[in-house]
Amino acid sequence: MSYQSIIDFLNQYLTLTKEEQELVKTHSLVKEYSKGTVLLRQGEVANECYMVLKGCIRAYHVKDGNEETTEIYTENHPFTPASYITREPSKISVVCEEDCVLSLGSMEKTQEMLLKMPRLGEMAHLIGSDLMAKQQLQMIDFKSLSPVERYQKLIETRPELIQRVKQYHLASYLGIKPETLSRIRKKLLNTSGIS
Amino acid sequence: MSYQSIIDFLNQYLTLTKEEQELVKTHSLVKEYSKGTVLLRQGEVANECYMVLKGCIRAYHVKDGNEETTEIYTENHPFTPASYITREPSKISVVCEEDCVLSLGSMEKTQEMLLKMPRLGEMAHLIGSDLMAKQQLQMIDFKSLSPVERYQKLIETRPELIQRVKQYHLASYLGIKPETLSRIRKKLLNTSGIS
Repeated sequence: MSYQSIIDFLNQYLTLTKEEQELVKTHSLVKEYSKGTVLLRQGEVANECYMVLKGCIRAYHVKDGNEETTEIYTENHPFTPASYITREPSKISVVCEEDCVLSLGSMEKTQEMLLKMPRLGEMAHLIGSDLMAKQQLQMIDFKSLSPVERYQKLIETRPELIQRVKQYHLASYLGIKPETLSRIRKKLLNTSGIS
Repeated sequence: MSYQSIIDFLNQYLTLTKEEQELVKTHSLVKEYSKGTVLLRQGEVANECYMVLKGCIRAYHVKDGNEETTEIYTENHPFTPASYITREPSKISVVCEEDCVLSLGSMEKTQEMLLKMPRLGEMAHLIGSDLMAKQQLQMIDFKSLSPVERYQKLIETRPELIQRVKQYHLASYLGIKPETLSRIRKKLLNTSGIS
């Protein structure tokens, strides 16, 4: 099942041949992690990138003892920490918010696969461009939407997060105070039945 | 001179051979634009990506008649609007803040060059990864720094913007109100002589 998710994800970009699918299967490193496992610590250099096959991981930055949630990833979301690319100490920690099954990528594995499957380079570029565009759009939303609109957009696009992630992490992810998020939820519940 | 900037930029990622440098020269489309030229309009699909060789371009999103500045690019900064990748209507407009010399990229040109210089794919992936990491770090800063810290970081990392971009665009770029930015500048000038 796990491998099929990886193949389905890659097939969105370029349709894999049977041989390429086999190569992905034999080269994929899939691991299970318990809820609470810290995958990367702020200040360390990241040696792995992830794709969530099952569960939920959360990236956060600690400043003056406070956690700022910068990203939340669930099933079929890939995540490459900036530190994996820059080779500088990570500005974020990454933690499993639930029991997780993750596909792990590393520089060595990627190099090895690139030699056997040169099209992977083109695919990596397509995936990277796609992620870059998504990040850019996310930044535009973050800057231009009001707190209420940001929460409404979350309900529309990623409703599962509301059940799966603690409310104060969600508030921090949306860049609003937990008490403001409570007020917004109450107000939306009263006016439209949505919370 | 213009071409050399493009080659210097690419050489940061992979050192180009003489032949590859020639290919870049003959395939580069370099154009001049007057201050105020709109390169892309919100709602249109972007067919070009840019590298600033001279001048300054600004990306902004209009909402309820207000401009939110999302990005500002000066010399040697590449910029690929999300719409160029997603092929969906752009959420931003792009305007020349000064008279500009830009190198323009398009899908057709890229395909043409890829055929003649397959290493360009690897290079595009490296550049894309680098930009993705930068965007991610920018988002972390935007979320975790206070308005004063955001302005201080701008002074440290991109001091030229203070002279080149109108203060209300800078304020919007930093996600703070123009009057707050004025107050911050006055306070920093009084305490440290920095404005």
